[in-house]
Amino acid sequence: MTVNVLFAHNDVNWDVYKGTLEKALTDAGVPANLSRDLTPEEVDYIVYAPSSPLQDFTPYTRAKAVLSLWAGVETVTGNATLNMPLARMVDFGLTQGMTEWVTGHVLRHHLDIDYTLRHQDGDWLPRVPPLARSRRVSVLGLGALGSACAQALAGLGFPVSGWSRSPKQIDGVSCYSGDAGLKATLEQADILVLLLPFTPATENVLNAESLSWMPQGACVINPGRGQLIDDDALLDALDDGKIARATLDVFRVEPLPAEHAYWAHPNVTVTPHIASETRPETASEVIAENIRRGEAGEPFLHLVDRGLGY
Amino acid sequence: MTVNVLFAHNDVNWDVYKGTLEKALTDAGVPANLSRDLTPEEVDYIVYAPSSPLQDFTPYTRAKAVLSLWAGVETVTGNATLNMPLARMVDFGLTQGMTEWVTGHVLRHHLDIDYTLRHQDGDWLPRVPPLARSRRVSVLGLGALGSACAQALAGLGFPVSGWSRSPKQIDGVSCYSGDAGLKATLEQADILVLLLPFTPATENVLNAESLSWMPQGACVINPGRGQLIDDDALLDALDDGKIARATLDVFRVEPLPAEHAYWAHPNVTVTPHIASETRPETASEVIAENIRRGEAGEPFLHLVDRGLGY
Repeated sequence: MTVNVLFAHNDVNWDVYKGTLEKALTDAGVPANLSRDLTPEEVDYIVYAPSSPLQDFTPYTRAKAVLSLWAGVETVTGNATLNMPLARMVDFGLTQGMTEWVTGHVLRHHLDIDYTLRHQDGDWLPRVPPLARSRRVSVLGLGALGSACAQALAGLGFPVSGWSRSPKQIDGVSCYSGDAGLKATLEQADILVLLLPFTPATENVLNAESLSWMPQGACVINPGRGQLIDDDALLDALDDGKIARATLDVFRVEPLPAEHAYWAHPNVTVTPHIASETRPETASEVIAENIRRGEAGEPFLHLVDRGLGY
Repeated sequence: MTVNVLFAHNDVNWDVYKGTLEKALTDAGVPANLSRDLTPEEVDYIVYAPSSPLQDFTPYTRAKAVLSLWAGVETVTGNATLNMPLARMVDFGLTQGMTEWVTGHVLRHHLDIDYTLRHQDGDWLPRVPPLARSRRVSVLGLGALGSACAQALAGLGFPVSGWSRSPKQIDGVSCYSGDAGLKATLEQADILVLLLPFTPATENVLNAESLSWMPQGACVINPGRGQLIDDDALLDALDDGKIARATLDVFRVEPLPAEHAYWAHPNVTVTPHIASETRPETASEVIAENIRRGEAGEPFLHLVDRGLGY
């Protein structure tokens, strides 16, 4: 039987998602009619963005679930008309993409690929890099993203330390927590990866004092949040050589203004918030899998507990 | 008891190896007297380079083994005065270093890090890379180096194909062999890694015909041997866009002459034979482990079968 799937988002995203969602539904073996225009009482599933004009779920009498394309559903959980299961987006592509980006930039700094790229003028200047086992990498933040990156780097042979607010255990990673743990983690950060969430407790976690704990000539990679870094302190540390290189993907203001000192600094690489994002391709697979589960009578993935709000 | 270890190499290498060998012996718990100048009948072990002036092993009456610093021992195996065990160098640092270099440059091309590095002028131009699962990597050559690289790349999520002359099986890697297998492997090489040995059968394995089998816009990475590539054919393929980028670490003539077209080509990265090499640090650990084994009465690692010559 064909299921009717309502796409309740906006025009731009319809263009992006139509093809990938239809493919994912076909791949999942679910015959589906995906449309933005269905009579409410015919709708079986609602693919949903919290910003959608659809806010009154009352007429969707036979719908089996609302499947959010967003991870953050805090604006939906209080909706009194939403009485069916609500699933949030947990996109495995987000974690995978972050792991690839972080691993690529850690290896770039480790191998000093920039040096190679700058020396294409005919001079044969061999500099064999050290092995990963002599390059210590520290990851601040051990949530889904941080722990995936830490494990991938440990798998390549880097000695990896990780820090999180509450104690964690991750195979192959030396885990620290608390204030003393932060200092110990930064002291062994030849390459530092910032993947903490932005909270009042993490704002400016990288500041003049914590930068001073790091090894001379260390690298900083920030694909987490711009607010984790005291920008002036980092620029000072770059200018005096304490920090050799920084690769920054996120900023307090985005797009990063063209006149910001980071753009012009010779030892800073700016990347335009590309380290990872929810991908239509993998997000569509998550949606399709949940519809397949609904049709097969299996439990939905990533259901929101509306009492807790996530 | 202190063992007497003769270092039979040359002055340059003594400077390089003295410290690392002494450290490795200490770390292995072997009290040793490492010297270039010992009475032959006092010598317990000979750390050896086949190019050493030492060619008559007759006076080394109590020596328990000759431990080569070189992987290639073909000039030693026929030495009639060498009647004790001979071990060749199998440096795990060589494989590990190659894996790091190959993974780093595959991720560099996959993420298009060069694009990022070229755009540091204040323009915010986000281009989120695809996931590794949509980027097919092929590795030609599945010896120790090729299979280690193929497995590391598969572990990061790339669909990896590998080709070798004789059939192989490697977990997580689609293995091909023979002429038909070569074409199939190249047809799915969005990124191609060359790690074949140089033999009459592998010379110019990448030529005009085999390049034509590759996907449009593919990348070539060669840390194997310069002779694997027909250079004129690769330059033609780069000029017409069939091959988007090449990163080449090895060449028919090294150092690569300053006037060679590879240096000037905008889509070629030349690296000066640095992808990997035997490292004093890890080679010393292999030597020290073999001396530890000799003293403990355990079998030596990497013994040469002098009938076979390796």
